[in-house]
Amino acid sequence: MSGERLIYLPLGGAGEIGMNAYVYGYGRPGKERLLLVDLGVAFPDMDSSPGVDLIVPDIAWLEANVDRLDGIVITHAHEDHIGALAHLWPQLKKPVYARKFTAALARLKMEEAGLPQDAVHTVGARPETVTVGPFTLGFMPVSHSIPESAMIVIDTPAGRIIHTADFKRDPTPVVGEGWDEAAMQALAAEKPVKAVMCDSTNVFSPHEGRSEATLADPIAELIRSQPGMVVATTFASNVARLRTLAEAGVAAERSVCLLGRAMKRMVGVAQETGVLTGFPRTITPEEAVELPRRNLMLIVTGSQGERRAASAALSRGKYLGIEMREGDMFLFSSKTIPGNERGVLRVVNAFSAMGVDVVDDAGGRYHVSGHANRPDLEHVHRLFLPDMVIPMHGEHRHLREHARLAHEAGLAAAIAVNGTMLDITGEVPVVAEYIEAGRVYLDGTALIGAMDGVVRDRIRLALNGLAMVTVILDEKDQLLGEAWVELMGLPETGLGGRALAETMEAELTEFLEKAGGKLLSDDDKLDEAMKRIVRQVAMEEIGKKPEVRVVISRLAAE
Amino acid sequence: MSGERLIYLPLGGAGEIGMNAYVYGYGRPGKERLLLVDLGVAFPDMDSSPGVDLIVPDIAWLEANVDRLDGIVITHAHEDHIGALAHLWPQLKKPVYARKFTAALARLKMEEAGLPQDAVHTVGARPETVTVGPFTLGFMPVSHSIPESAMIVIDTPAGRIIHTADFKRDPTPVVGEGWDEAAMQALAAEKPVKAVMCDSTNVFSPHEGRSEATLADPIAELIRSQPGMVVATTFASNVARLRTLAEAGVAAERSVCLLGRAMKRMVGVAQETGVLTGFPRTITPEEAVELPRRNLMLIVTGSQGERRAASAALSRGKYLGIEMREGDMFLFSSKTIPGNERGVLRVVNAFSAMGVDVVDDAGGRYHVSGHANRPDLEHVHRLFLPDMVIPMHGEHRHLREHARLAHEAGLAAAIAVNGTMLDITGEVPVVAEYIEAGRVYLDGTALIGAMDGVVRDRIRLALNGLAMVTVILDEKDQLLGEAWVELMGLPETGLGGRALAETMEAELTEFLEKAGGKLLSDDDKLDEAMKRIVRQVAMEEIGKKPEVRVVISRLAAE
Repeated sequence: MSGERLIYLPLGGAGEIGMNAYVYGYGRPGKERLLLVDLGVAFPDMDSSPGVDLIVPDIAWLEANVDRLDGIVITHAHEDHIGALAHLWPQLKKPVYARKFTAALARLKMEEAGLPQDAVHTVGARPETVTVGPFTLGFMPVSHSIPESAMIVIDTPAGRIIHTADFKRDPTPVVGEGWDEAAMQALAAEKPVKAVMCDSTNVFSPHEGRSEATLADPIAELIRSQPGMVVATTFASNVARLRTLAEAGVAAERSVCLLGRAMKRMVGVAQETGVLTGFPRTITPEEAVELPRRNLMLIVTGSQGERRAASAALSRGKYLGIEMREGDMFLFSSKTIPGNERGVLRVVNAFSAMGVDVVDDAGGRYHVSGHANRPDLEHVHRLFLPDMVIPMHGEHRHLREHARLAHEAGLAAAIAVNGTMLDITGEVPVVAEYIEAGRVYLDGTALIGAMDGVVRDRIRLALNGLAMVTVILDEKDQLLGEAWVELMGLPETGLGGRALAETMEAELTEFLEKAGGKLLSDDDKLDEAMKRIVRQVAMEEIGKKPEVRVVISRLAAE
Repeated sequence: MSGERLIYLPLGGAGEIGMNAYVYGYGRPGKERLLLVDLGVAFPDMDSSPGVDLIVPDIAWLEANVDRLDGIVITHAHEDHIGALAHLWPQLKKPVYARKFTAALARLKMEEAGLPQDAVHTVGARPETVTVGPFTLGFMPVSHSIPESAMIVIDTPAGRIIHTADFKRDPTPVVGEGWDEAAMQALAAEKPVKAVMCDSTNVFSPHEGRSEATLADPIAELIRSQPGMVVATTFASNVARLRTLAEAGVAAERSVCLLGRAMKRMVGVAQETGVLTGFPRTITPEEAVELPRRNLMLIVTGSQGERRAASAALSRGKYLGIEMREGDMFLFSSKTIPGNERGVLRVVNAFSAMGVDVVDDAGGRYHVSGHANRPDLEHVHRLFLPDMVIPMHGEHRHLREHARLAHEAGLAAAIAVNGTMLDITGEVPVVAEYIEAGRVYLDGTALIGAMDGVVRDRIRLALNGLAMVTVILDEKDQLLGEAWVELMGLPETGLGGRALAETMEAELTEFLEKAGGKLLSDDDKLDEAMKRIVRQVAMEEIGKKPEVRVVISRLAAE
């Protein structure tokens, strides 16, 4: 044994879908030179992270070892792979490597955050390589639901790693490079593969994935059949789908209008970087309102029912002068991500109430996934026949099922969730260490730890409401005036229509007038006693214990 | 025209799935005698109704016309049909009619709320009838996912109404009466049907519904194949499924233990009322822990991932002495209701991390729906050939699609969402009036209007956090001490690690010391100015505007 080892450490994306961040290291234990692959975000929800803007991986470990980090690779420009770059780069300040389209979007993010764009380096597809510390990296094009996704071929002194990133086996992806089976076989034949770190998203989908190209005809047919305006939504970054939709619109003699900032930006960058050519001419919303509805097609943001996106805006009424009407059609050329159902159904029902026909992916007729299904994953296992498969990009259930698949194929596999450092130097993965990993919330401009209690307090306020109590005591611990209670998120009246705040104030004042000097002079005991009284009154009056905050002001003698 | 009319007015359940409450009326306009069918709840969620315990229909219109109300019918004992009974009965105080099993559960609810159980009257199935005001009601047994669901045959002076309630066409429902096609045809032949008010839940399901009886073999086979403990969940009220599961467990030489209060209650009531016979003997959790795992089967509550239910408790660790382990299996013999995905996946992933195999409905192998699918709805349209079909029990998209189906069959139909009073005296439905309808939140023991602002404040607190400011002024409007700020749900530190509250206090104190007497003497202006300062500091320090509450205390001269 040389004393050097090869390690793999997911800091995000393993045990969840979102905020991907995977560390590789090579060197003597504790001295490995490090490489970070992807730096993405996850999205907050009201249940667990109300008010939060974005969720980023906790990279405290990486920051503590930042002198060992040689670079950051971004596999593709989806937010769950690139979204945290501009937020966390200042803590890392290392060169960023990506393919052209991805790099252009990375530079936009850096620019908007006032960070140096020249930290982002464009790397061409294989055979071009870039050396980052002990790692030589090649970007192998794969098909996905955004242009230029890349499988990273990582050559290390301990062997070759294939980091699949997000991919599907699609030879005809409409925009960008397809899955090139011959090239993949050549890659597999080049040298043995130690480990495949592999996308697990669709491991539960039993059928082979379908090509993006299969959508063109059904979508075109659907649009041709519509007498009114057609509005379609998909992910803004799914440039191939945007093209399929737009071309179907044009074929049906419709002018195409893109709505939503993210969508226009994606199409713009895709065109500027040469990834997208021949996209139909689009018109502005101002031009759109002048056209007969049967000659109009909108392609809009908001496939997940996001409140601020164009689809939700249209579901609420007029948006940029455009209004949906009876006889129009709205097409979800997308899948609802688990957790977003309520938002999507809100939009669907609002359209229904307007008389708009809503069409969803219809079991795959109008949407295909960008991830490899189970048979495709099995194909990749067989293709590379690595020493080991390490499932990534999935919730625990996905990782577990994917590891099971690998075992069935006779390959070693390990379930390594965020924070699990694997030593993959040998023929089987071995857990080397557990690192503190987790989530950090971007909240406004502040980064707050998921465990700091800030969000827990918000959830408590939302569940329980708040009673704020203020009392003023003089230098002799005598009550000045009366106790004052303000309520937020609580009903104003309790039993028999009594004002709840007043009932609390009366009880508090009575208590304070009777309380002895010893209690009145002790802030902690006073606080505790008053909280108890407020909660008790609340239980009696409204059957619920609110959060209580007590502010005791003590006026000094002048 | 006789001057009398027949009206239909949904107060809940039409335009949503949940809190069913449908009013029928017959008489001179504005003087109709009224009948209420069902009084259910909907369930709150963190996005729109944090902290709320239950959602009930706003029955203000019914209360205002309570002297015209003659009775309440409960079609079946699902919470979305019966759950609001004990909460709203005190406002109505009318006799309640239901079949035996449903009535037993209704009485339990009344008893627990300290209300008179004898308000609940048991009515046998047709041909038995009960007369309520101008209505003669017959309970026609239908199959559903709870015993004794009943289609209500409502004979009125203006013709016959069929209120389907929740149903499926299942001739072999395992527990309770099946769909009896011959009896239905006889009913249809009795006399013309004016209107069918019809369940719309599964209108988007294109295939004929499958029978509960088809599940026994696949479930038994699945359980037999398991080497470890088997835990299965379904809705507690799905007594037939409980029986299928329990019998499959027994066939696999397992002892069956029910976990979860709701489940034990349902089985108890079903047995007491004679609906359920021959249910396998069950064991207690204490007995269960003594058995080898391969001889044990738990049937537990929590098919929707509810945090307090048994399934979630087991996913967190030991529950009543029982712990899941590697090699055990957890079966969701249920469907995830849209909106509950996050909670269900939380449970699934926690089990996955324990090494437990999770099996879901597997495309219908281990679960069938309790609602009629599209072909079954079409069958019912053809069966009764009513003058009109009024879709109910569905979101807007369901009602719209169902109305479209009826139109295709050549029948009149109308989409009547909550609050839409239809005059159905003639051959086609006509909107008579729009009534104020909506939701009321049961919050602790208080009923609060959804529009009262209480829940809106909670959501704001959760999204924005709270800064509480207290200042004390003397009788000359001079500041006593300094401004005091307490934060809740906000990061403690802003830019450069400065304490956020202190930065706010410094700015406020500086402002107050400079402020003129005119401002200091005006509470409203002072409040507004201080809020502005706090928000401004927050924007600078943390990039976010919190909720702000200011308490100004003015001490009178002594």
